[in-house]
Amino acid sequence: MEEKLPVFESIFSIDCLIFGFEAGVLKILLIERGDEPFKDWFALPGYIVKQDESLDDAADRILYELTGLRDLPMKQFHTFGEVNRHPQGRVITVGYYALIRVNSQKELRPTAHLARKAIWHPVSDLPKLAFDHTDIFNKGFAKIRRRLNHQPIAFDLLPEKFTLTQLQGLYEAILDKKLDKRNFRKKMLSYGFLKELVEKQKGVSYRAAKLYKFDKRKYAKIFQNELTAE
Amino acid sequence: MEEKLPVFESIFSIDCLIFGFEAGVLKILLIERGDEPFKDWFALPGYIVKQDESLDDAADRILYELTGLRDLPMKQFHTFGEVNRHPQGRVITVGYYALIRVNSQKELRPTAHLARKAIWHPVSDLPKLAFDHTDIFNKGFAKIRRRLNHQPIAFDLLPEKFTLTQLQGLYEAILDKKLDKRNFRKKMLSYGFLKELVEKQKGVSYRAAKLYKFDKRKYAKIFQNELTAE
Repeated sequence: MEEKLPVFESIFSIDCLIFGFEAGVLKILLIERGDEPFKDWFALPGYIVKQDESLDDAADRILYELTGLRDLPMKQFHTFGEVNRHPQGRVITVGYYALIRVNSQKELRPTAHLARKAIWHPVSDLPKLAFDHTDIFNKGFAKIRRRLNHQPIAFDLLPEKFTLTQLQGLYEAILDKKLDKRNFRKKMLSYGFLKELVEKQKGVSYRAAKLYKFDKRKYAKIFQNELTAE
Repeated sequence: MEEKLPVFESIFSIDCLIFGFEAGVLKILLIERGDEPFKDWFALPGYIVKQDESLDDAADRILYELTGLRDLPMKQFHTFGEVNRHPQGRVITVGYYALIRVNSQKELRPTAHLARKAIWHPVSDLPKLAFDHTDIFNKGFAKIRRRLNHQPIAFDLLPEKFTLTQLQGLYEAILDKKLDKRNFRKKMLSYGFLKELVEKQKGVSYRAAKLYKFDKRKYAKIFQNELTAE
């Protein structure tokens, strides 16, 4: 006799952690909920996965409906399943993240009434978030901080051409500490994955700084195969 | 008016990827299912999360019921949510993994009838697995392979004291390629995180090899803070 799976009234959702870097400030994408009983709460963009869509498809759809942004390079980072994490039932939520250039993105324009508004908010001054979204943020941010050591994630946040001051500002924002300018530059340049451009910074009133590009192939060679390369 | 969450008949489960290293062979923990309609299928140890337990608690309970092993240092690695991944309904499964020393573990003794038997099976010769368990295995194994570059995971699989031949064998098993002996040793010793012991290998008929221990503090210093250390 075939045994059936026990069926519970369970729900899974997606929550999105979208980081952006804009004018030297590390930001996170938040929504202001428009639905009762959560009206006016700040929350990560997130909602319920439909029965007939995969997790990845759901992440794309939900982010689009709640913020107007689409086709971001989102990746899973953790699934949150504490028993009482949501007041309306057992909801297990899959956390997705992406790191993007804010300037390259279109206007924020939610279409679902669930989100009254979508905004970029500085990470350094996070408001109180709905449910366990602060925990989700902390877990994801810690993961990104660790990844900074061995994956070229910083370069997803920067413009294609950037100054060393911008790069240092981003590292400081992610690591939440001041770095010594001389040491930082020496170390970064010593790896060989920063390519100095002939072109210099434009539109500044002070002395124009050198611009750099990121050489992904060199980076991969240095860090991906550290211990295992022949 | 308060809006209720839409409730679907959804199920979440846990699947466990437990790697062990034994006598030079990298192995994975499998069960032979004992329940219809999956009788005799090989599968990863996994089953349904209960309504009143967290994901981490469920992972511990399920692994124990299906294999007899408990309190392993399991961590989430990915959540699988393709629409048709399970023949009996929409089941989203959270993948957990652990790397352990096989010899330090007790006998495999399932208590749930779902698992007729639990066995350690060589990774290099994996049988056909139930559902999408081969995909889950591949995804987890690829992640472990990448982690080998920057986390001390190899040392969780080795005995406390090991020879360089054992260490190389483990790297070769995880990377699925032969490594040059001289290069491997030179590189491994150059990092400074292997501590040579006075004690030598025992109970071998050939010339006893040097034994090493792993210095976690040195490893952490070298790899965790590569780019961000001052």
